[in-house]
Amino acid sequence: MEEILEKKLESGPLNFESYFSEKALKMKASEVRELLKLVETSDVISLAGGLPNPKTFPKDIIKGILEEIMEEHADKALQYGTTKGFTPLRLAIAEWLRKRYNIPTSKVDIMITSGSQQALDLIGRVFLNPGDLVVVEAPTYLAALQAFNFYEPQYIQVPLDDEGMRIDILEEKLRKLKAEGKRVKLVYTVPTFQNPAGVTMTEERRKHLLELASEYDFIIVEDDPYGELRYSGKPVPKIKALDTEGRVLYLGTFSKILAPGFRLGWIAGEPHFIRKLEIAKQSVDLCTNSFGQVVAWRYLEGGHLEKHIPRIIEFYKPRRNAMLEALEQYMPEGVKWTRPEGGMFIWVILPEKINATTMLEKAVKKGVAYVPGEAFFAYRDVKNTMRLNFTYVDEDKIQEGVKRLAETIKEEL
Amino acid sequence: MEEILEKKLESGPLNFESYFSEKALKMKASEVRELLKLVETSDVISLAGGLPNPKTFPKDIIKGILEEIMEEHADKALQYGTTKGFTPLRLAIAEWLRKRYNIPTSKVDIMITSGSQQALDLIGRVFLNPGDLVVVEAPTYLAALQAFNFYEPQYIQVPLDDEGMRIDILEEKLRKLKAEGKRVKLVYTVPTFQNPAGVTMTEERRKHLLELASEYDFIIVEDDPYGELRYSGKPVPKIKALDTEGRVLYLGTFSKILAPGFRLGWIAGEPHFIRKLEIAKQSVDLCTNSFGQVVAWRYLEGGHLEKHIPRIIEFYKPRRNAMLEALEQYMPEGVKWTRPEGGMFIWVILPEKINATTMLEKAVKKGVAYVPGEAFFAYRDVKNTMRLNFTYVDEDKIQEGVKRLAETIKEEL
Repeated sequence: MEEILEKKLESGPLNFESYFSEKALKMKASEVRELLKLVETSDVISLAGGLPNPKTFPKDIIKGILEEIMEEHADKALQYGTTKGFTPLRLAIAEWLRKRYNIPTSKVDIMITSGSQQALDLIGRVFLNPGDLVVVEAPTYLAALQAFNFYEPQYIQVPLDDEGMRIDILEEKLRKLKAEGKRVKLVYTVPTFQNPAGVTMTEERRKHLLELASEYDFIIVEDDPYGELRYSGKPVPKIKALDTEGRVLYLGTFSKILAPGFRLGWIAGEPHFIRKLEIAKQSVDLCTNSFGQVVAWRYLEGGHLEKHIPRIIEFYKPRRNAMLEALEQYMPEGVKWTRPEGGMFIWVILPEKINATTMLEKAVKKGVAYVPGEAFFAYRDVKNTMRLNFTYVDEDKIQEGVKRLAETIKEEL
Repeated sequence: MEEILEKKLESGPLNFESYFSEKALKMKASEVRELLKLVETSDVISLAGGLPNPKTFPKDIIKGILEEIMEEHADKALQYGTTKGFTPLRLAIAEWLRKRYNIPTSKVDIMITSGSQQALDLIGRVFLNPGDLVVVEAPTYLAALQAFNFYEPQYIQVPLDDEGMRIDILEEKLRKLKAEGKRVKLVYTVPTFQNPAGVTMTEERRKHLLELASEYDFIIVEDDPYGELRYSGKPVPKIKALDTEGRVLYLGTFSKILAPGFRLGWIAGEPHFIRKLEIAKQSVDLCTNSFGQVVAWRYLEGGHLEKHIPRIIEFYKPRRNAMLEALEQYMPEGVKWTRPEGGMFIWVILPEKINATTMLEKAVKKGVAYVPGEAFFAYRDVKNTMRLNFTYVDEDKIQEGVKRLAETIKEEL
C-alpha cells in the first residue's frame, strides 16, 4: 500500500498537459515548499514552519466539548449546514467581536469559512477582475498572493517599517494612480503581528488608512489570525473597529486560538458583501464542516477561549524572547531583524549581497531551515530576507537553530 | 443578538455593486432556494431536500472514535494537514476502492477534498477554459453546474433514459462536433442512482462511454455519492474500474455513508491530474479539516463502514418503496416517474403543459414542497419535471406529501 504515499508521475497514454486550463498550466509547485517537505522528516531544526505548537491545543476542553456534542448536539454537528455558517457560532463570534474588540456589529454580517485561506479565495472571486489593482504589503502573506493570483490582479507593493505599512507611501501611490485614471480596488493587510514581518500597524496609521479608503474609494481586507497572541506592548484597535463606512472585511480564524484541525475562519463585513461572498461559497464547498463549527461554538459560549488565550501567550512568549536573545547573541553585524510584540514570526534582513533563497540549501546542510523571504513579495524582487518561526520548536532548539543560521550567514559573507 | 440571523441589506454610503468582479455581478441567489428556505420552518412536508436522514448517522460508532482520537491521535487531528490529505485516510480509501470496487489503485492517486463540491470546483479550475465543451446529463446535478459555471464552459446536454446517459446520442454529438473541429474536454456524469433522476447507467453504456473517451480524447468525471445506497437490483462496475487509460476522475464522499458534517470527499485519479488539483487546492483552503479526516480514517480502518452500510440501506429502502407506492396510488394519468434501485431521489415528469417552477408556490400552499426540475438542466429548457427526495421524511409523510402533490397536479391539469 505504500505506493499511494508518493505517486511517481509516469508518462502514459495521455498527454496530460493537453487537458489543463491555461491558468492551471501556470500553476507551479513551490520549490521551497518541496525542499521544506524533506526537512520535516530529518533532524534539521526547522524555523520554517508556520504551525501552532500542539502543546497549545486545549485538548481537555475539546474532550469535554466532544462528549457534550455527542450527547446534545449530534444531529446538527453531523448534518450539512447552511453556507453562511452555523448560526449559534455566528452569534457567538459577533458577541466576541463586540465585547472584546469594540467592533459595532449592528451593521456587520458574519460568514464562516473553511479557514481564512478560503476567505481570501472568495474575496478574490467576488472582487477581482483581471488587472484590478490590489495593494499588498512588501512583504505580505504568501498564501494571500497565491489565493489572489488565480484572479490575475495587478499588485501594488507598499513597504513596511516597524510601525506597519507605510501609509504615507501608499498615499503617494494612490495619488499618482488617480492622476493616471487608475483606481485601487482592494488593500490587503495583516496589520497585527504581521506574517511574515511580525510588525504591527499603529493606530494612527490605521486611521489614516481608513481616511484614504474613503477618499480613494477602496475596500480594506484586514487579515487578523494572530491578533490575540500579544506578548508585550499595548493592544491597538482593529481597523474594523474604526470603520464607519463598511469598507473593512475582517478575517478571523480559530487556527491559532483553538486548533487548526477544525479548519475554521470567518469574514465579518458589510451585509451586501457577505451576501455575495455567501453565493460564491455555495459553489465551492456548499458549507464549512458543521462538526468543527459546533465545537467552536461550545468553545466560545462556554467561555473557554477567554480563559485559554493567556495559556497560549504564556507558552509562546518565552520562545519569542529566546529567539530575540539568540539573534542578539549570534548574528553578525549587518543583519537586522524585527522585534514583534506578538504573533509567530520574526523577519530577518540580511546584507544585500546575500541571496536567502540560494543559501537555504547550505543552511539545511548545517541543520537549520527557514523560509526565504522572496516569495513574500508580490514581485519577488527582494532576495536578502527570511522568515523565522518561534512557536513550533522549543527554546533550546531555537537557540541552537539561530546559532547554526548565524554560522551559515557568516560563511556566506 | 437576533439581528445577526438575517441581516437586512440596507443602502449605505457605499455603491456596493461597484466593487464586485464581473463574474460576481452575474452570481445570483436562486429564487427556488430562497422559497425552500422558508418551507423549512413551516409545517409543509418537504420532499425538496437532499439531506441524508440523521437517523442513519452512526452516532455510537462516532462517539467511540472521538474518544479514541482524543486518547491517541489528538495532535494530528487538531493540527494542519497536508493539502493532499491525511495519508492513513488516503491509504484506507485506496484499499476500499480496490477491495470493494475492483478499482486498480497502482496507478491512481487520491486527494481528500472538502466535500465533493470542492472536487467539482477544483476540476473546473484545473481543466476548464472559458468556452470549453463540457458534456452533462439532462438533467444533471445542479451544484455541478454551479461549480463549473464560474469557469464559463459551454455545455452539451445529453438526455437520460432508464439506463442512464444516452451514449448513442453522445456519440452522435461527438461526431458532429468533431466534424466542426470542436473537441469535448470533459464528460460529467453521476452514473449510479443519479441526482436528480435516480437512474443508473448500464455496464454496456459505461464501456461504450470509455471507448468514446479514448476515441474522442476526453476526460470523464464520475461523481458517485450514492453508489453504496443500493436497495434492489445488481451492482454495476464503477466506470473507474473499467478505465485502462487514466481518463476517469472518480469522486467519492463520506456524506452519505458516514455523515455530511465532517465535509469530506475525495478524488481518485491519474497522478498527474491529482498533482495539479493538489496545487490548485493549496490556494483555496490549504487543506481539508484534519479532525474529520482522522474520524473517517478510524471509521474505515475499524471496519465500521462495511458494517454500517446495510443499516443505512435498511432505513432508506422502505422509504423509497413508500414513495413509489404513493406515486402509483395518487398520481393522475400522464404523470411519469423513474424507479430508482438506490440513492435518494425520484424524478417526476409531468404532462408538458405543466410548469413545475410556477406550480411550486401552489404546492407549498397545499403543504408539500419539491425541487422544480428546471435548474437541473444546463439550459433550463425543460419546465415540466421535478425532483422528489425520499430519505429525509418518514413513510407516513411521504405518503401524505405525494397525495398533496398529486392533488396540486390534478388542479393544474
